[in-house]
Amino acid sequence: MAYSLNEVCEYVQGRLEGDGDVLIQGVNSLDGAGTAEITFAENDRYLDKVSSGQAAAIVVAEDFPDLPGCNLVRVSNPRFVFMQIMEMFVTPLEMTGVHSKASIAGGANLDKTVSVGACAVIADRANIGAHTIIEAGAYVGVDVAIGADCYIGANAVLMKNIQIGDRVVIHAGATIGGEGFGFAWLKDHHHKVPQLGSVQIDDDVEIGCNSCVDRATMGVTRIRRGTKIDNQVHIAHNNDIGEDVIIAGQFGSSGSVTIGNRAVFGGKSCIADHLSVGENAQVGGASVVIKDVEAGAVVFGMPAQAKRQTFQELAYIKRLPALSKTVKAQEKALQQLQKQLAALISKLP
Amino acid sequence: MAYSLNEVCEYVQGRLEGDGDVLIQGVNSLDGAGTAEITFAENDRYLDKVSSGQAAAIVVAEDFPDLPGCNLVRVSNPRFVFMQIMEMFVTPLEMTGVHSKASIAGGANLDKTVSVGACAVIADRANIGAHTIIEAGAYVGVDVAIGADCYIGANAVLMKNIQIGDRVVIHAGATIGGEGFGFAWLKDHHHKVPQLGSVQIDDDVEIGCNSCVDRATMGVTRIRRGTKIDNQVHIAHNNDIGEDVIIAGQFGSSGSVTIGNRAVFGGKSCIADHLSVGENAQVGGASVVIKDVEAGAVVFGMPAQAKRQTFQELAYIKRLPALSKTVKAQEKALQQLQKQLAALISKLP
Amino acid sequence: MAYSLNEVCEYVQGRLEGDGDVLIQGVNSLDGAGTAEITFAENDRYLDKVSSGQAAAIVVAEDFPDLPGCNLVRVSNPRFVFMQIMEMFVTPLEMTGVHSKASIAGGANLDKTVSVGACAVIADRANIGAHTIIEAGAYVGVDVAIGADCYIGANAVLMKNIQIGDRVVIHAGATIGGEGFGFAWLKDHHHKVPQLGSVQIDDDVEIGCNSCVDRATMGVTRIRRGTKIDNQVHIAHNNDIGEDVIIAGQFGSSGSVTIGNRAVFGGKSCIADHLSVGENAQVGGASVVIKDVEAGAVVFGMPAQAKRQTFQELAYIKRLPALSKTVKAQEKALQQLQKQLAALISKLP
Repeated sequence: MAYSLNEVCEYVQGRLEGDGDVLIQGVNSLDGAGTAEITFAENDRYLDKVSSGQAAAIVVAEDFPDLPGCNLVRVSNPRFVFMQIMEMFVTPLEMTGVHSKASIAGGANLDKTVSVGACAVIADRANIGAHTIIEAGAYVGVDVAIGADCYIGANAVLMKNIQIGDRVVIHAGATIGGEGFGFAWLKDHHHKVPQLGSVQIDDDVEIGCNSCVDRATMGVTRIRRGTKIDNQVHIAHNNDIGEDVIIAGQFGSSGSVTIGNRAVFGGKSCIADHLSVGENAQVGGASVVIKDVEAGAVVFGMPAQAKRQTFQELAYIKRLPALSKTVKAQEKALQQLQKQLAALISKLP
Repeated sequence: MAYSLNEVCEYVQGRLEGDGDVLIQGVNSLDGAGTAEITFAENDRYLDKVSSGQAAAIVVAEDFPDLPGCNLVRVSNPRFVFMQIMEMFVTPLEMTGVHSKASIAGGANLDKTVSVGACAVIADRANIGAHTIIEAGAYVGVDVAIGADCYIGANAVLMKNIQIGDRVVIHAGATIGGEGFGFAWLKDHHHKVPQLGSVQIDDDVEIGCNSCVDRATMGVTRIRRGTKIDNQVHIAHNNDIGEDVIIAGQFGSSGSVTIGNRAVFGGKSCIADHLSVGENAQVGGASVVIKDVEAGAVVFGMPAQAKRQTFQELAYIKRLPALSKTVKAQEKALQQLQKQLAALISKLP
Repeated sequence: MAYSLNEVCEYVQGRLEGDGDVLIQGVNSLDGAGTAEITFAENDRYLDKVSSGQAAAIVVAEDFPDLPGCNLVRVSNPRFVFMQIMEMFVTPLEMTGVHSKASIAGGANLDKTVSVGACAVIADRANIGAHTIIEAGAYVGVDVAIGADCYIGANAVLMKNIQIGDRVVIHAGATIGGEGFGFAWLKDHHHKVPQLGSVQIDDDVEIGCNSCVDRATMGVTRIRRGTKIDNQVHIAHNNDIGEDVIIAGQFGSSGSVTIGNRAVFGGKSCIADHLSVGENAQVGGASVVIKDVEAGAVVFGMPAQAKRQTFQELAYIKRLPALSKTVKAQEKALQQLQKQLAALISKLP
C-alpha cells in the first residue's frame, strides 16, 4: 500500500508544507519512521526529534514551528488525524469464502457472504450473518447465532447456544460459553450445579486472545454494546458487563458481577462475586475489588479502595520506621520526666 | 424439553399446592423466571418476590407461608431440590460417533462408543475409553490414556504420554502436559532442563477453559480424584493436588507444590514453589502464598497470612493518620512538660 | 530407551563404583527412583535417602561417602551431570512430514524437511525453515516467517506477518500476533486504533502454553534471543523484551514496556505501560511494577519496591498493634504527668 503525500493530505484535509509527490508507504513512531513513512509530533516539545528524523512527512499542529526541508502536514489535532492516516494502511480483511477443508454441518445456516477458514468447524443450527469471517480452526457450536460483519479468530471456540451481535470481534484462542464454575458439596463429593444459561454478546464488542466468557447458571452472561476486552480475561457466569466498558488484560471476575457503562479496569485487576462497579468507575491495574465500587470512583489496591487513600496509606507505611523511632524516643523522654518529677516531689517538703 | 408440574413434583417427591398441569419449560432465578419457568425461594424473606413474580411454579420449604394463586412445590431443602430440577433440563451430550473429518492415527485405540468431532486429531497409541467425547479440534497426543465417560472440549490439547481417569472433564482450550518451566544457566545461556515426566489426572476431575497443567520434570504432576479447577488456571510441574480440591479461576502454582484434600483456592490466588497447603485450608481470592499453609487455616493477603490478621492489620493501617497525629501532639505535650518542669526546677531554690 | 550403567558413566565421564551392567531405563528423583532408574544426591545430607532407596544408581560428588552395595557414579557436579543423563532419555521429536489432513496454501513456502500435523493450517506466503515442526491444529498466518529447527505446538496460532528466528519453541495454545489493545474515545464510542505493526521473535526463544504476544501498534513487539517465557503470559504491544530474560507463568505487561537482558520475573508479576526494567533486575512473584526498576534491583510487592524494604515494612505493620498500645499508654502517662505537674505548681507559692 502506498499513497503520495498529496493524497494523504487530501484525505485528512491537512495543509501541506513541502513536497506532495513524496511516496508514503507506511506509518511509524517519531523515533522509528524511515524515509518512506509518515509520523506525527503532538507539539513543539518534539521539535528536535522532528528536525533530526528521516521521516517522509510529519503531521503537526497548526502552530508548530516552520521547518524548511521537512514535509509537514498541518492539522488541528495531529494525534487524531494520524489515527486516520493509520487507517489508510489497514489491510482489508479478505473474504475468501468457505474453505474446502472447513467442516460445515448440514443444518448450519450461513449467509452466502460468510468466510470460513480451513479446519474451522460449524455445528448444526449455527446461524452466521453477512460478511462475517470465521478463521481457520475456530469452532462454532450448535444453536450459536452470530450477526453480520463479525470476526472470529483462529482456534477460537464458541460453545453451544450463544448469541453474538453485529461487528463483534472474538480474537484467536478465546473460549466463549464455557460452563460456569459451580459445585455443591453433597455428603462426600462436589456435585456439579447444572449450567443451563447462555451468553449474549452485543454489537461492537471485542474480546481478546485466549479470553474466556462463561455461560450463566440460569439466564445469560451479558456483555453489552461497545465493550472492549483485552487478552486472557476471564468473565464468569451471570456477569452483566455494561456498555463501552474497557477491560485490560488478565482481568478476572467472579460470578454474578455487575459492571456499569464506561467503567475501566486496569490489567490484572479482579472482582469478587456478586459485587457491582458503577458507571465510569476506574479500577486500577492489579487491584482486588472486594466490595462494591460507586459510580465514578477511582480505586486501587489489594484490597481496592479510593486510590488516593491507598497511596496516602502507602506513604504512612513508609514513615513507620520514623514513627516507631519517635515513639521510642518519647518513651525515654517520658521516663526521664517521670523520674525528674518524682525526684522533685520527693525533695519538696 | 418440557414437563408438567406434576411430573416435576413426582421426580423430586415434593408436595404440590396448585395446578399440576401447568407446563414447565425451564428454570430461572426468582427475578428472571417467566410464565413457563420454575424457580425457588430459600425462605420467607423472598415472600414479596414470590407473590409478585410470574413464575409457573416455585419450590419452597415446608414452612413457607401459603400463597393461594401461586403453584408451590413444598420440599424440605428447596435449594438442593431445585438443583435436582435443573438437572431435568440438562441436554444430554450427543454421542455422534467419529466425524469423517476427524484424524485418527492407525495405532490409536478407541472404544467403539467414543465420539470424535470434526478436525479433532488423535495420535498414535492413544487409548480412549467407552462413551468418551472428544470435541471438534481437540488434540490427543501419542501414548495418552483417557478413561470412560470423559469429555474433552473443543480445541483442548492433551500432549503425549499422559493418563486421565474416568468421568474427567477437560474444557475447551485447556492444554495438558506442557513442559515444566525449568532452565539452568550454563555459562552464557539458559539451558533447558529436560521435562521427562508425565501428568496423571484421576477420576471425576474437571479442568476449566484455557487452563494449563504442566508435565513433571521427572515422575508425575498429579491431580487427584474429584478436584474441580476453573478457567485459566496454571498448575505447574510436579504439583500434587489432593482430592476434592476447589481451585477458582486464574489461580497459579509454581513447581513442586503440594495441596491437601478439600483445600479451597479463591480466584487469582497463587503459591510459590515447593510449598504445601494442608487439608481443608482456604486461600482467599488474589492471595499470594509464600509460606506453607497449615491444614484448616484460612488465609488472605499479599503475602497470605491468617485472614483475621490481614484484616486487623488493614484496620490498623487505616488508623495510621490518626496515630501519627497523636504522636505529633504528644511530641508537643512532652516539650511543653519539659519546658514547664525546667522552669519550675530553675525557680526552686 | 535403556542404557547400561557403563554406557551412562562413559557418556558423562563419571567414575563408577558398583555394577556397570545394571540396566538404566529412566531417571527419577531420590524419593521416587525405582530399581531401573538412576537418580542423584547433591551432597551427603541425602546419605540416608541414598542408602535406603532402591535406585539402580546414584550420581554423587567425588567426596560422597562410600556406600558398598549401591551403584555410585562419582562426578564433580552431580546436578549438572544428572541433567546430562536426563538428556539421554529425551525422546527425539519425530519428523513425520506433512500430514495429508494438513491444509497448506498454494503460496506457502515450506522447506522439504518441515513436518506439519493433521488439521494444521499454513496460509499463503508463509515461509517455514528446515526441520521445523508445526503440530496438529496449529495455524500459521499469511506472511509469517519461521526459521529452522522451530517447534510450534498443537493449536498454537501465529497471526499474519510475524517473524520468528531459529530454534524457537511456541507451545500449544499460544497466540502470537494478536492486535494490541488500543482504543480512542471518539464522541460516543471507543474507536479502534489500527494495529499495523508486527512481532519479531529472535533465536532460541521459548513461549509457554496459552501465552499471548500482541503485535505492535506501529513497528514491532520484540522478544530477543534466548528469552524463556512460561505459560499464560501476556506480552503487550510494542514491548521490547531483552535477551535471556526469564518470565514465569501468568506474568502480564502493558504496552510499550522495555525489559533489559537477563531480567527475571516471578510468576503472576506484572508491569504498567511505558516502564522499563533494567538488566539483571529481579521482580518477585505477584509483584506489581508501577515505576521503572533499575538494573540489578531486586523488587517485590504491590506496588513493587526494593524487596528488603517491602519486608521491612511488613514487619513494621505487624508491630502496629504494639505500637498503638504504646502510644495509648504514653497518652495516659502524659496526662498523669500533666496533672501531677499542675498539682505541684498549684501547691507552690
